[in-house]
Amino acid sequence: MSDQTRFLLNETDLPKCWYNVMADSPLPPTPVLHPVTLEPVTPDFLSVLFPMELILQEISAERYIDIPEPVREIYKLYRPTPLHRARRLEQALGTPAHIFFKNESVSPAGSHKPNTAIAQAFYNKAAGTKALTTETGAGQWGSALALACNFFGLDLEVYMVRVSYDQKPYRRIMMETYGAQVFASPSERTQFGRLLQAKDPESPGSLGIAISEAVEVAATSGGAKKYSLGSVLNHVLMHQTVVGEEALKQMEMAGEYPDVIIGCVGGGSNYAGLAYPFLRQNLKGGKRTRFIAVEPTATPSITKGAYAFDYGDTAKMAPIVKMYTLGHSFVPPSIHAGGLRYHGMAPSMSAFCKAGLMEAIAVPQLTTFEAAVQFARAEGIVPAPETAHAIRVAIDEALDAKEKGEKRVILFNFSGHGHFDLSAYQAYLSGKLEDYAYPAEEIQAAMKDLPQVVA
Amino acid sequence: MSDQTRFLLNETDLPKCWYNVMADSPLPPTPVLHPVTLEPVTPDFLSVLFPMELILQEISAERYIDIPEPVREIYKLYRPTPLHRARRLEQALGTPAHIFFKNESVSPAGSHKPNTAIAQAFYNKAAGTKALTTETGAGQWGSALALACNFFGLDLEVYMVRVSYDQKPYRRIMMETYGAQVFASPSERTQFGRLLQAKDPESPGSLGIAISEAVEVAATSGGAKKYSLGSVLNHVLMHQTVVGEEALKQMEMAGEYPDVIIGCVGGGSNYAGLAYPFLRQNLKGGKRTRFIAVEPTATPSITKGAYAFDYGDTAKMAPIVKMYTLGHSFVPPSIHAGGLRYHGMAPSMSAFCKAGLMEAIAVPQLTTFEAAVQFARAEGIVPAPETAHAIRVAIDEALDAKEKGEKRVILFNFSGHGHFDLSAYQAYLSGKLEDYAYPAEEIQAAMKDLPQVVA
Repeated sequence: MSDQTRFLLNETDLPKCWYNVMADSPLPPTPVLHPVTLEPVTPDFLSVLFPMELILQEISAERYIDIPEPVREIYKLYRPTPLHRARRLEQALGTPAHIFFKNESVSPAGSHKPNTAIAQAFYNKAAGTKALTTETGAGQWGSALALACNFFGLDLEVYMVRVSYDQKPYRRIMMETYGAQVFASPSERTQFGRLLQAKDPESPGSLGIAISEAVEVAATSGGAKKYSLGSVLNHVLMHQTVVGEEALKQMEMAGEYPDVIIGCVGGGSNYAGLAYPFLRQNLKGGKRTRFIAVEPTATPSITKGAYAFDYGDTAKMAPIVKMYTLGHSFVPPSIHAGGLRYHGMAPSMSAFCKAGLMEAIAVPQLTTFEAAVQFARAEGIVPAPETAHAIRVAIDEALDAKEKGEKRVILFNFSGHGHFDLSAYQAYLSGKLEDYAYPAEEIQAAMKDLPQVVA
Repeated sequence: MSDQTRFLLNETDLPKCWYNVMADSPLPPTPVLHPVTLEPVTPDFLSVLFPMELILQEISAERYIDIPEPVREIYKLYRPTPLHRARRLEQALGTPAHIFFKNESVSPAGSHKPNTAIAQAFYNKAAGTKALTTETGAGQWGSALALACNFFGLDLEVYMVRVSYDQKPYRRIMMETYGAQVFASPSERTQFGRLLQAKDPESPGSLGIAISEAVEVAATSGGAKKYSLGSVLNHVLMHQTVVGEEALKQMEMAGEYPDVIIGCVGGGSNYAGLAYPFLRQNLKGGKRTRFIAVEPTATPSITKGAYAFDYGDTAKMAPIVKMYTLGHSFVPPSIHAGGLRYHGMAPSMSAFCKAGLMEAIAVPQLTTFEAAVQFARAEGIVPAPETAHAIRVAIDEALDAKEKGEKRVILFNFSGHGHFDLSAYQAYLSGKLEDYAYPAEEIQAAMKDLPQVVA
C-alpha cells in the first residue's frame, strides 16, 4: 500500500488501445433499428451521420482498437490524468475506507469528454468531413468537441439545451473561444426546433431535442456536415476506456484494487470509460468488484425507466436502440446537472445493469450538492454537479464501511470540475435549490410513445 | 533533448525548502518604514498584522527555509505541477524556439496563489490566529486563501475590488463555497471604505483601497484578526519559489535550459516564484538567462512608475517600502486583468529591475487577448487575462527567434486559468475590448503624494 496522495503516469504509459467491452460481454448484442422501418440499420443509413471508421467501431467485435498516433499526440496535452487518494475526505468522514478518484477534470475542456471528441474529430477529418454538428447539455461535451474541431480544422455547430445556455454563459463563450458556433435549442434553425418553439416558446429544451436538431442539420446538409454524439453509442464509450486503462495501472501503483467503482451516468460514457476495463477483470474471473452507476432522481432512466427499444432523440430521427429509457418525449426538469438530463442510457450499460453485472442508484439534488461542498472543502476541487452524484454515493459507501467497520477500496470517476456551474452552488448555499423526483405517472405516460418493436 | 510534451515530477520531488533570494542578492536590502513615523518598522508594529514566523521570514537572510510538513501535505493535492512544452503553439508560430510553460493553473483555486495561502494559513493557525482578513483583485488570491483557511479551520473576510466583484460573480461564489465571507470594496464595513463611498459611490475600487480595508479590519480587531497579503512581500514571493525549484528539475528532464524566462507581474509573486531559483543560477555565475517581467500598459508600474518609497495601500496604513510605484493614490482603469491592478511592485523585483538583473515590458490589452486566444486554440487551456500578458511576450520572443533564425528556449509561468474570466473573452471576441495606456500626466500627479523619505 502506497503512502502517496496522487499517482501519476508518464507519457509512455498512455494507453495504445481502446478497450471494446462488447468483445467480452456475455450478453447477446442488441440490434440498432432504423427509426422509420424499425428494421436493423445498414451502414449506409448511419453513414449520413458518421464516417465509416466510427460505424465500424460501433459494431466491432475486436477486443482492442489501436488509438491513432495523432489522437495520442493530442491526448498528451492532458493525459495520463492523475489518480488521487482522497485522504482529507477520508479523514473528514472518519472512515476506514480508502477513497480514490480518477481526475478527468484536468483536461483543457474540464471533463472526460475530450477523450472521444478528439477521436471523433480525427476520424471525421480523415474521412474528408468539413463540419460537424452536435448537441450539448451542460456544455461539457460542446466545449470538448469545440476544442477537438479546432485542433483538426473542422467547423462546428453546437445546439445547446436552452436551460444550460441560459444558466451557463461561460460554457458558450468557451466554445466560441475555440471557434465554434453555439445556438440555444430549441432553435429557429431547424424544422423541428421551429415546431417546438411554436408549441412552447418557453421550452427549457432537452438533450433529446438538441440531438434532433443537430441530427436534422447534418442529415439535410447533402453530405456537407456530419453529426457527432458525446455519449450513449458503443464507439463513444470505447474511446473513454483510456480512463479505466490508466486507472488500472494507477491502482496497481497504489497497491490496492477497488471493491466498488462508482460513476455518474447521463448517457453513460464517463462511467463506462472508468468501469469497463475493470469489468473486464470481473468477466475474466478473479475479481468481484461492485459497479454502481449513479443517476439523478430527476432523470431516473435505469432505476425507474423501462428496458425497451426507443428512439435516441425526441424527433424520432435518430436510430432506435434497446436501452433503459424514460421515453423519447421525456423533458426533464431543469436540474443543475445538465449533463445528466437524457431520457435514455447507453445500450451496453443498460444491458449490464439489466443482467445484474452493474447496479444503479438514483440520488436527489440537495444531498448531492451537500456532498459536492463537503468534497470541495476536503479536497479543494469544486466538482461539476454531474460528478457530485458519484461523490454522493462514494461518501455513502465510505460511511457504510465505517458503520460496518470494514476496510473498503472505493474508486470513482471525477468526471469534471464545476467552474462553470457556480450559479448552482450559489443556489444551493443560499437555500434556493430544491429536490425533484420525476413523478411515476409522467414516466408511465411517456412510455406510451415507445416504438412497437418485436424484440 | 526530450520528445515528451509534459514533464511530471513525483511527490518525492516536491521541494523541501523555499528559496530566499535575499540571501544571494548583490543589492543592499531596503528598509521597511512605519507609515506614520517614516522610521524603520519594528516587529511589534508588524505583529499587529502578521504572526511572528512570517515576520521572521520577511526579514530572513537564510538561503533556504524548510517547508513545514503540514504545508507539504496540502501541496500534494496539486503539486508538483506539470511543466509543458507548447509544441502545438510552436508549430502554429512556425518558430525554431522551444516554448515551455509551468502550469500553475492545476491548483484547486486555479492559480499559483495557494502556494503562499496554504503557508500563511498554516503559520497563522500555529500562532493561534482565529480569523484572517485580505483583499482580492480578480479573485484568484481570495479563492486561494479561502481554500487554505478552510483547510486550517480559520475564518476569512475578503475585500474584493468592486469591479471584479461585479465582473466575476463565480469567483465570489467559489470563495463562499470554501466558507469565506466576501465584501465588495470599497465597502460599508470600514471607516476608509465609508469615506470613499461618500466621495464616489461609483468607485470601481482598487487593490490599494481593498488592502486598506482589510488592514483596517485586522488592525482594529484588538488582536482577534490578522491580515494576509497575496503578493509583494518577501515571504510571499519566497513561498512561491516551489514553482521555480520544480521547474529547474523539469527543465533538466527536458534536457534544456531557458534562455529567457517570462511572467506577468501585478505585485510580482507568480513571476518571482518561477524566476528567482533561476536567477540564483545567474547570480552564482555560469548562466545568463534573460528575465522579463510583463505588466499591462494600464498599470505600468515598472516601465512608467518611479523607483521610490511609497505606501503599500491607499489609506497609508500599510508599511512604506521602496519599490516601483505609480503612487498609492493610483486608481487603475477597469481592465480585465484584475490581478495586475496594483500601484506598486515587490521591493525585491523592483530592485532587480532597477539594477538591470531583470527587464520589464508593458503590453496593451488587445494584443494580449489575441495571444490568449491563440494559445487557447493551440494548447487547449484558456489562460487568465493576467497570464495572457506572459503569453504575449513569450509569443513575441518566439517570433523574434524565428525572424533571427535562432533556437531559443523560452519558459513562462502559466499562472492561472481563465475559467472565471470568460466575460472578458466575450468582450474581446465581440470587439468590445479597448486598449488603455495610463496617461503620463496622471502618473505625474499621483507621484506628488509620495511620502517624503530621505533614502
